[in-house]
Amino acid sequence: MATAQPEWHPPVRHADEPVLKVHNSLTRSKTEFTPKEGRHVKWYNCGPTVYDASHMGHARNYVTQDVLRRIMTDYFGYDVHFVMNITDIEDKIIIRARQNHLYKNYVSKATALSPALVEEVRLAWVAYLQSRLSKGLPEGFLQDSAPPDEIFTRIREHAKDGQWKSECVKRDEKFSMHLTAADRSFTAISAAEQHLRDGQTDAQFAQTLVEASSDVLSEWLDKELKTTVTDHSIFRSLSSYWEDRFFEDMSRLRVREPDTITRVTEYVPEIVSYVQRIIENGYAYEVDGSVYFDTQTFDKTDGHFYAKLEPWSKGNQKLIEEGEGALTDNLGRRSSSDFALWKASKPGEPAWPSPWGPGRPGWHIECSVMATAVLGDNIDIHSGGVDLAFPHHDNELAQSEAYHNHAPWINYFLHTGHLHIEGLKMSKSLKNFITIDEILQKYTARQLRLAFLTQQWNARMDFSESLMIGEVKSIESGFNNFFSVVKALLMDTDRVKSDGQHRYGDAEQELTKQLHESQAVFRAALCDSFNTPGALDVLRTLVSRTNGYINSRGKDMNVKVVEYVAKWVGKMLRMFGLGEGESSEIGWGQDLGKEGVAVNREEILMPYLRTLSSFRDGVRRLAIAKEDGALKDILALCDKLRDADLVPLGVALDDQDDGKALVKLVPPEELQRARDEKRKQAEAKAAKKAAQVELERQKRIQKLEKGRVPPEEMFKPPNVPEGTYSSWNGEGLPLTDREGKDLSKNQNKKNQQAWTLQKELHEKYLAWKKEESG
Amino acid sequence: MATAQPEWHPPVRHADEPVLKVHNSLTRSKTEFTPKEGRHVKWYNCGPTVYDASHMGHARNYVTQDVLRRIMTDYFGYDVHFVMNITDIEDKIIIRARQNHLYKNYVSKATALSPALVEEVRLAWVAYLQSRLSKGLPEGFLQDSAPPDEIFTRIREHAKDGQWKSECVKRDEKFSMHLTAADRSFTAISAAEQHLRDGQTDAQFAQTLVEASSDVLSEWLDKELKTTVTDHSIFRSLSSYWEDRFFEDMSRLRVREPDTITRVTEYVPEIVSYVQRIIENGYAYEVDGSVYFDTQTFDKTDGHFYAKLEPWSKGNQKLIEEGEGALTDNLGRRSSSDFALWKASKPGEPAWPSPWGPGRPGWHIECSVMATAVLGDNIDIHSGGVDLAFPHHDNELAQSEAYHNHAPWINYFLHTGHLHIEGLKMSKSLKNFITIDEILQKYTARQLRLAFLTQQWNARMDFSESLMIGEVKSIESGFNNFFSVVKALLMDTDRVKSDGQHRYGDAEQELTKQLHESQAVFRAALCDSFNTPGALDVLRTLVSRTNGYINSRGKDMNVKVVEYVAKWVGKMLRMFGLGEGESSEIGWGQDLGKEGVAVNREEILMPYLRTLSSFRDGVRRLAIAKEDGALKDILALCDKLRDADLVPLGVALDDQDDGKALVKLVPPEELQRARDEKRKQAEAKAAKKAAQVELERQKRIQKLEKGRVPPEEMFKPPNVPEGTYSSWNGEGLPLTDREGKDLSKNQNKKNQQAWTLQKELHEKYLAWKKEESG
Repeated sequence: MATAQPEWHPPVRHADEPVLKVHNSLTRSKTEFTPKEGRHVKWYNCGPTVYDASHMGHARNYVTQDVLRRIMTDYFGYDVHFVMNITDIEDKIIIRARQNHLYKNYVSKATALSPALVEEVRLAWVAYLQSRLSKGLPEGFLQDSAPPDEIFTRIREHAKDGQWKSECVKRDEKFSMHLTAADRSFTAISAAEQHLRDGQTDAQFAQTLVEASSDVLSEWLDKELKTTVTDHSIFRSLSSYWEDRFFEDMSRLRVREPDTITRVTEYVPEIVSYVQRIIENGYAYEVDGSVYFDTQTFDKTDGHFYAKLEPWSKGNQKLIEEGEGALTDNLGRRSSSDFALWKASKPGEPAWPSPWGPGRPGWHIECSVMATAVLGDNIDIHSGGVDLAFPHHDNELAQSEAYHNHAPWINYFLHTGHLHIEGLKMSKSLKNFITIDEILQKYTARQLRLAFLTQQWNARMDFSESLMIGEVKSIESGFNNFFSVVKALLMDTDRVKSDGQHRYGDAEQELTKQLHESQAVFRAALCDSFNTPGALDVLRTLVSRTNGYINSRGKDMNVKVVEYVAKWVGKMLRMFGLGEGESSEIGWGQDLGKEGVAVNREEILMPYLRTLSSFRDGVRRLAIAKEDGALKDILALCDKLRDADLVPLGVALDDQDDGKALVKLVPPEELQRARDEKRKQAEAKAAKKAAQVELERQKRIQKLEKGRVPPEEMFKPPNVPEGTYSSWNGEGLPLTDREGKDLSKNQNKKNQQAWTLQKELHEKYLAWKKEESG
Repeated sequence: MATAQPEWHPPVRHADEPVLKVHNSLTRSKTEFTPKEGRHVKWYNCGPTVYDASHMGHARNYVTQDVLRRIMTDYFGYDVHFVMNITDIEDKIIIRARQNHLYKNYVSKATALSPALVEEVRLAWVAYLQSRLSKGLPEGFLQDSAPPDEIFTRIREHAKDGQWKSECVKRDEKFSMHLTAADRSFTAISAAEQHLRDGQTDAQFAQTLVEASSDVLSEWLDKELKTTVTDHSIFRSLSSYWEDRFFEDMSRLRVREPDTITRVTEYVPEIVSYVQRIIENGYAYEVDGSVYFDTQTFDKTDGHFYAKLEPWSKGNQKLIEEGEGALTDNLGRRSSSDFALWKASKPGEPAWPSPWGPGRPGWHIECSVMATAVLGDNIDIHSGGVDLAFPHHDNELAQSEAYHNHAPWINYFLHTGHLHIEGLKMSKSLKNFITIDEILQKYTARQLRLAFLTQQWNARMDFSESLMIGEVKSIESGFNNFFSVVKALLMDTDRVKSDGQHRYGDAEQELTKQLHESQAVFRAALCDSFNTPGALDVLRTLVSRTNGYINSRGKDMNVKVVEYVAKWVGKMLRMFGLGEGESSEIGWGQDLGKEGVAVNREEILMPYLRTLSSFRDGVRRLAIAKEDGALKDILALCDKLRDADLVPLGVALDDQDDGKALVKLVPPEELQRARDEKRKQAEAKAAKKAAQVELERQKRIQKLEKGRVPPEEMFKPPNVPEGTYSSWNGEGLPLTDREGKDLSKNQNKKNQQAWTLQKELHEKYLAWKKEESG
């Protein structure tokens, strides 16, 4: 008998697993992804410059990065170290912080309307025309010798002509925005001048003028007074404020926090030594306290190459100047392609000490230094928006390779695509600028993420109403419907419990096979440079086939197979960050709070417990005070708990005859609607009843009013026509007619009856009147 | 200027990623895991035979399989199809169901104690001695001609000798259990006989006898009446009941449901054709309506090998017979290694039609058929407890390879290790048999899972109090402490907000590096045949290093680095099924309900809302009834809500002087403890006060008792010694002493004073007595 196991042969694969390829901007093609060390991935992502509210462009960029990161960690199982910087030193921040600061000071001092104030605002306005409108206006338009008011009136006239204006916009895309600002200020100046003529100098007129001229003044004040700004904390507080807002927005969009966050202000000494080393390595030079990167020398050195990402953009002055910032003139550069590593700071600009005098880092060097500090000299992935490719990322590459003196510093560059709104570039001047806060009023985080998932991450995306309404909402409701159907089927215990029937026949084999094929195609799609639109399509097709199975199999359906599909679909949707929870759940996962963030037990419970407790407080107070009517007040509290306190919490208490209320959790809106409906009906009923009561009161009054006349007066004018009778007895009963003739017996009898009735009515009338006055 | 990108070279790897190797029972070594198709994994796991409560052995086996499955899906990212069967046709089920059924019938008919009933039970008892005790007793012990009572009394006497008894247990490990059952029945029979002699025939005496003899009777009834059982639904309802309990237990242990569940009762026709094909292929033969697998022919055929897993167990009759079942004698087999594919059913056994007559499937064939039906002819992984390796899995392999006529059918066989309790094999007779229900009273699902994770999945495990108390609870609290510290640090906004300081220095670099190294070592451990004890150690070491970092860095600490570590540690713990929730959470994740299952919003809220509602119901009822003392009763309800209703829900209401209670969520045990403490203190205080009151009462009584004697009697015996005085006045004041002499003036004065005082005391005494009797 054999006592050794037979030989075992490793299985022969039918199909190899697909390998992950990513669109690498360094090759502009899909290349196989190979991390340097095992499954550890070093990833640096360019974070925001924090000086204003985050907008849809940020949403697309950071949500898309978040999706890629989730796929890498949660689907492919890489151990990713995701590092992101916050740019908190930059010319835009300096200008914005200084302008805000100077303008706020100015506002606080504008306590009365004076000729000097108006004159100053006018000066600012004239300066604004020159600095902001000249670029868009036809050449020489402002060189006219006419007074500025006259020139501006002419501009306003011209601007009514769409053709003329659109030519201005063609020359300067921000023309409309600046014209609006100038116009607002101009109108306010005219009004202020009129107020002065009228002798009105109140503070409110001063404030109106200054507020309407905020753009005009901010720019002028900064030009005139920037050197007076010596308190550098104003820069830090502006950036800190906007950094907090940024992360709040990200959290609402369910973007995971980076593993490591770096801030430029925290890395200035490191930046200084980094720059020194580049100088030492021969790739940078100092001019007047600023240090520039020597692109020519670098480019000519063997093993180096300047502008690896976009060599065709080398020398593009528009892009280079944008990268250098509005406060930087870069006089003294050896080449117009060179860029600042270190900028000498002028008065009114924040400054740190350096071997080249007080200054601050250039924009591009920040990322090189911080990424190197955390991730070292060879990084697997660097990502950012596509508009950063040149010059920002190309300069980063050049700096870092000059510093480490070897290439490459980055192995894979991933650039997320642009975002357009309804076909146009998003810009404040086009009035299609949408902040994250605004968009989240309209769509949920899940809907926005779905919208981004329907697009290839590195392609340009057109965000539009029709995408959201037509496509995204229909995708979402497709999944919703599917999950509800599956949950309902699983609640049906008859279906779930075994009845001893074999239920894994051809149709089940087929559906299981479709699931497995979908899993393979889904994986292939994500391996194909994170093809999320393709992957979503796989899920949608599978759902529709499963719906087909459900509909066609009827009572022969095997719910377990459907559950198997639903669990996988839900797990993949959650992997994309569209929900969260256990991987064996059906559906999107946990209930998400309004802000798209999962809530914990305490957060869920506390509002309800506070309500319970304060109800009890009220009841106790009343019971302790023992005042008259305490029990009635306690009952009123019971009603208030039901009708007011619990309604916004979504709790319905239905009082029953047996004194035990039914408790239900209902969406608050539904409850509110029901309560409003109930209240409306009650009001309608009350109104009807009130009308009825009023009608009866009127009838009663009418009847009582008949008794107003005392019986003694009833046969005398004006209660009968003048001259109806000629004499009366002591009780006012008529004795003779107009001609003095005695009344007939019949007549007397009738009058007597009427008199008796009136006496009765009059007594009632008097009693009523007495009651009324009492 | 260049307009093309420079050449890009793929990164050169520093370290390759480790490959997954698994301990494969087919080689008894770790072999690289290669699924047949991409990342799709076909996995068949042997499920339970459902006829009794699941125990710790099941817990270890299924939790361990669940951990392996989670690692494969959630860590390595395989698309796993996890199939498990339920064995609901098997000899154990048949016997248990029949015995339960017959015994229940018998109980319902035992409505009076009669000589016939006692006689029948005695017959059953004698049969039990033979069938159950003979194996353990010394040879020939029962062959004695003495009456059974006498023999049994002798056994009882012997059994007091530990040595003698342990030899019996050595012969039959179940000896003690059977002796106990026989003893219980014997005592009940003697008592019943006494009742009969006393003329007591009540139903209750009959029931007591029958219940005490349940084991004895079940066996005897089955032997006598099994052929009368014709309603086969009793088998299905027994297995269905225990299947439900099994899945409940699994869910409490957080074991995920299989993707596909198969039941033998649902697959009988498939089994019949499967057996037919094996016969056609020449590897099976029919004898008297049963079909046997021809192990000899199979083993001799080229390309086949019988007992691949344990060739050394071939022919092990003990294992083979256990596998064949208690109802099967297998007469007519060609070889004693052959096993039944199809069993002819005798009367009293469930039967399905087949070409060989009515019968039922053998145990081993079930899994071959169902696994093939769902997963096909080549399966990546087959798993089960190690005790199933031979003959069950070896027979499965032989059958399936004989059916498909090719090898191999299974590529990787994973066998989970045995479980011992405190060093001994778990068994009912050793009284160390623990059901899952029992163990979950003592430990949480998380603690049990942690215990299993500390063991290599395929090694024998000793489950012991010291493992749980000494190791597991300390591991758990180590993680708990770490998570609480990190959460507290993150709540401290001063630490989290940037203060512009650079906080990523050497210590942070080092900690980050340790995290990344831990990630690599963790991965290597799981790749090394799912080495969970090693992986857990990695997490614990990392936690302890991070604690070191926290303690040493003080206020210079970078909380973000600590958070980065904590998120990864929590994610990995959740991956092992120790908690659940978003991967970016800190800690174990969601609060788990008592049963270890995550609860949803409604489940969380409803107990609290029901409490709120019923409190309100009570208040309303009292306020509407308007009875006297209603306000007092309402206050009592308010106290009850605080002290009784909300305590088990973990809500603390702290009443404040301003009438607004503070609401806190506190673990119920803590609250209960606080309430008990408060109550104890109050009781102690009350007891002390009561003792004080009693003491004062006693003193007062003592004082009052002094006034018991009326002043008239105070100078007379027995209040003074006989003959102290010889005459008294009308008020009882003594006049003369014992010798008839007048008392001195001084004496008289003293007596008068004493008399007046006593009068006063006596009046008080009388008033007290009157009050007491009133």
